[in-house]
Amino acid sequence: MSKSARFGCLCCTYDYETPKTLVIQSTKIGCMFRLVQFVVLLYVVGYVCVVRKAYQERDSVISSVTTKVKGFAYTNTSYMEPRLWDVADYVIPPQGENSFYVLTNVIMTPKQTQSRCPELPSPSTTCVDNHNCFEGHNDPRGSGIQTGLCVNYSATVQTCEVLSWCPLEEHTKLPKPALLNAAADFTVLIKNSITYPKFKVNRRSILPHINSSYLKKCEFNRSTDPYCPIFRLKNIASEAGEDFQDMAVKGGILGIFIDWSCDLDWGAHRCFPKYSFRRLDSKNPVNNVAPGYNFRFAKYYQTPDGQESRTLIKAYGIRFDIIVFGTGGKFGIVPTIINLGAALTILGLAPKVCDWILLTCSSKKDLYKKNKITHLNDDDTESVSMETTYGTQ
Amino acid sequence: MSKSARFGCLCCTYDYETPKTLVIQSTKIGCMFRLVQFVVLLYVVGYVCVVRKAYQERDSVISSVTTKVKGFAYTNTSYMEPRLWDVADYVIPPQGENSFYVLTNVIMTPKQTQSRCPELPSPSTTCVDNHNCFEGHNDPRGSGIQTGLCVNYSATVQTCEVLSWCPLEEHTKLPKPALLNAAADFTVLIKNSITYPKFKVNRRSILPHINSSYLKKCEFNRSTDPYCPIFRLKNIASEAGEDFQDMAVKGGILGIFIDWSCDLDWGAHRCFPKYSFRRLDSKNPVNNVAPGYNFRFAKYYQTPDGQESRTLIKAYGIRFDIIVFGTGGKFGIVPTIINLGAALTILGLAPKVCDWILLTCSSKKDLYKKNKITHLNDDDTESVSMETTYGTQ
Amino acid sequence: MSKSARFGCLCCTYDYETPKTLVIQSTKIGCMFRLVQFVVLLYVVGYVCVVRKAYQERDSVISSVTTKVKGFAYTNTSYMEPRLWDVADYVIPPQGENSFYVLTNVIMTPKQTQSRCPELPSPSTTCVDNHNCFEGHNDPRGSGIQTGLCVNYSATVQTCEVLSWCPLEEHTKLPKPALLNAAADFTVLIKNSITYPKFKVNRRSILPHINSSYLKKCEFNRSTDPYCPIFRLKNIASEAGEDFQDMAVKGGILGIFIDWSCDLDWGAHRCFPKYSFRRLDSKNPVNNVAPGYNFRFAKYYQTPDGQESRTLIKAYGIRFDIIVFGTGGKFGIVPTIINLGAALTILGLAPKVCDWILLTCSSKKDLYKKNKITHLNDDDTESVSMETTYGTQ
Repeated sequence: MSKSARFGCLCCTYDYETPKTLVIQSTKIGCMFRLVQFVVLLYVVGYVCVVRKAYQERDSVISSVTTKVKGFAYTNTSYMEPRLWDVADYVIPPQGENSFYVLTNVIMTPKQTQSRCPELPSPSTTCVDNHNCFEGHNDPRGSGIQTGLCVNYSATVQTCEVLSWCPLEEHTKLPKPALLNAAADFTVLIKNSITYPKFKVNRRSILPHINSSYLKKCEFNRSTDPYCPIFRLKNIASEAGEDFQDMAVKGGILGIFIDWSCDLDWGAHRCFPKYSFRRLDSKNPVNNVAPGYNFRFAKYYQTPDGQESRTLIKAYGIRFDIIVFGTGGKFGIVPTIINLGAALTILGLAPKVCDWILLTCSSKKDLYKKNKITHLNDDDTESVSMETTYGTQ
Repeated sequence: MSKSARFGCLCCTYDYETPKTLVIQSTKIGCMFRLVQFVVLLYVVGYVCVVRKAYQERDSVISSVTTKVKGFAYTNTSYMEPRLWDVADYVIPPQGENSFYVLTNVIMTPKQTQSRCPELPSPSTTCVDNHNCFEGHNDPRGSGIQTGLCVNYSATVQTCEVLSWCPLEEHTKLPKPALLNAAADFTVLIKNSITYPKFKVNRRSILPHINSSYLKKCEFNRSTDPYCPIFRLKNIASEAGEDFQDMAVKGGILGIFIDWSCDLDWGAHRCFPKYSFRRLDSKNPVNNVAPGYNFRFAKYYQTPDGQESRTLIKAYGIRFDIIVFGTGGKFGIVPTIINLGAALTILGLAPKVCDWILLTCSSKKDLYKKNKITHLNDDDTESVSMETTYGTQ
Repeated sequence: MSKSARFGCLCCTYDYETPKTLVIQSTKIGCMFRLVQFVVLLYVVGYVCVVRKAYQERDSVISSVTTKVKGFAYTNTSYMEPRLWDVADYVIPPQGENSFYVLTNVIMTPKQTQSRCPELPSPSTTCVDNHNCFEGHNDPRGSGIQTGLCVNYSATVQTCEVLSWCPLEEHTKLPKPALLNAAADFTVLIKNSITYPKFKVNRRSILPHINSSYLKKCEFNRSTDPYCPIFRLKNIASEAGEDFQDMAVKGGILGIFIDWSCDLDWGAHRCFPKYSFRRLDSKNPVNNVAPGYNFRFAKYYQTPDGQESRTLIKAYGIRFDIIVFGTGGKFGIVPTIINLGAALTILGLAPKVCDWILLTCSSKKDLYKKNKITHLNDDDTESVSMETTYGTQ
């Protein structure tokens, strides 16, 4: 009675309950036991703590990027007057947020005005007479609104006339090599400022130990200058396994990956950016519509008589996306406890394993069983209670 | 003595310590015990592993996006000369990073020059004579710097004269339907390239099995073409539960969400984008200043005599934000161990529960107690030690 | 035999195995035991649950931002004709995605054309006669392609002539105070729309309880209006610990951090943005190339005779990066179980600790040991088995 009562409210009494144990002095079993424990410990200490740093809390980086491209190119080709290109000409838009674009090849259509002109020849636009053209017809694949007239495109070909920005952009073949292949030697300065908000850690890609005189002359090189934030465009391309000259013709997208993964237990000053490069657009001709990278924009002018005209520019070029990522890790009590707990549980399996081996495989299993296990059979209570009373009364 | 010593340095000896146990052959209790175990196992296997994939390590996606809009619109309205709009006219800026903007409605103020003109009439700007205007006064709600003169705005109204870009932009009511409501039929190609850096997995929204002939004609459709990266603007709007024509008038922001959540245990090739759409700006008129979406920009011209003039454009339009997110999961040893550990611990509670029931609720509790528990009382050591010597000597 | 068999397939029978335990009625040990348990519980409940909310699943925010700057500035300086600057003039580009840029200082080089002009004087460009200049020579540090002629830069200095955009941009000293220091009083409205995809939670920086009349007149103030999304630029600077007027001269980058960290168990309506501000670019003159923030762009004109001319603008200004971050937490069954499991494991260490103290440090250790531990020695099985048979037969 009193006992049951005491047990019932065990929590409030000061009894201390501890399991009865049997100590077996057997080198064989002992060794096995220690071995199992050792393996688990090895995993915990070696793998979880050292390799995976599972005791750390993690936070992902937030970043801000600015870029500054330097260099100019001089073009002197048959189809365009001699021209010097500087930053204001080839960086479009003048500033991006996490990317910058360098114009490398261009198809210009100057002096466009809102007027009428013959469509570019194609099966759907060639015509014999006005009956082939429909006034107001708007062909998505065409260049404008048809006026219903059939006019001479050239001496031999007739096409429907359209209302549009005329003259139309010709489907001329791209200059090859690219017009601005000199862009390969342009350099870009990438300033990257990051934060790990959870750990209140701020870092810059221009590291504290770097002085401005070094920055003025350095250039990124994986082996010699891994922390110089100034990159030569052709090197970025080659690091990404591409040939700049090839890319320049049709354009493309290069990813500049900055990895800020850090073990902040060693202090933020040990946290350095790791740069890597990869081409982001698909070169594969099979599943590729509009390969390369290009977009159209226009410079708008006004003729003295107030009429608007524009120069349409189909700009082929390389867009450089600066992709900043990484996770910072710092010792945290919660993940530590969690991993410790998990490990100890696994550790707690060791005896179970040994017991099982002990009581099934070992030669002396019956002896062990006799000492370890007491059997109590509900059905023949007498004998059992009898047997056990000895044990405890 | 020797025992105590041995126990003290248990770790270094090869003793194996195992708890003495009592086996109760009782179907009732046995069943209960198994039941509890079963429930826990069910949770672990069924929920944690199958449903939540808690055995996986996670990494969040990093992405790069490019867009290409196609289509043109022809406008022929009373207040503007007939005009054809193509990509270079209505996509501003020509390229964004994770978004693109399509102009749908516009208020143009052409031929603005730095000069003097009467303020727009408002309680604070109307005047009777020069005494109501103050030279150099700069009213934040006004349009420029007052010159101190009171001039005729119209036959009936006088307002203060200001130095500004004149003529001023009139607060005209917006064209309705929108000027470029034809934009509804424009299409956009979205190229998205993603990376899971931790797992070294790269994917593109243009999936490998898609060939370019399909891409040339396909159009996104949740049911028939869920992986075609070409979208018709009005469909995006309707998928987001909006009416494109309505949005076009005052502009707005539509989110194109690309979910790359993947179970990478099945291999990256099983990883597909899931598209969803939602309007991001508030339509709610109550807590809404400047509803819709618009911004001002200008085209700058130079008159032959070198004077600068501009066309101010208040551009209403729809900004499409491409928001890429998702977490990739792949089997990881650490999370597995952690969840296993946690599960085993919960499993370890089963006996405690059963014991408690056994020793409090069961009919034979006293019998069980006698066999399971030995009491040792510090105060009357004799009796106890006596009682227990039997047990072990 | 039967026993061993039964044990072997314990899982399939309905035996219930429970450890034999020894209850020690000792206040001292009992107290100690409870104390250890209490400490662990305190950690679990107090720290893990209340402080760290470790029972929550986490998701990180995805966001979309729009900005609208308001205000204008009037400049009347010696080196530039009187001019009024409005949004279309000083916000470049007219719309950003997660940032906006306000022009504050400028170096203009108007009427540039592709032509020939003398280089700016520098050790590498000054010359005595044509022999110092090399036709076609392209000096990266120069401004163009040398023509091979040595011409007068000024009455006293001769430099090599270059093909470039002429006249060249002079290295004039920056206007100080900044041209547009009036920008300090510009205001910006930041609309931010966020999503926690895992929890299907959407929020806006314009909170539901805010009405438009309040928005029309409110201005962010950490103490009085912490949720007003309209900011005065100079306040942003001062909150970041910077002086706007200083920054305006050479430009810079200010981060507007919006923290959406929320405990979503209380419902999304309790989730508010927290604004903070920090300068992102380095002021440190030591490790700083190109301090401040500026970029070049050009406005292109066409002279009546069709020749292209441009106004080159070196734009110094402040870029405001809106950086949205935060993690939402919501009760999750998996993290709960994991933490519970870990805690219980630690709790399970309490007895081990007590046992160790009990059996090594306590005065009655031998007595306890006799009752708790049975020794079984493989070597002299007889005696032991003898000793233990009593215990169980």
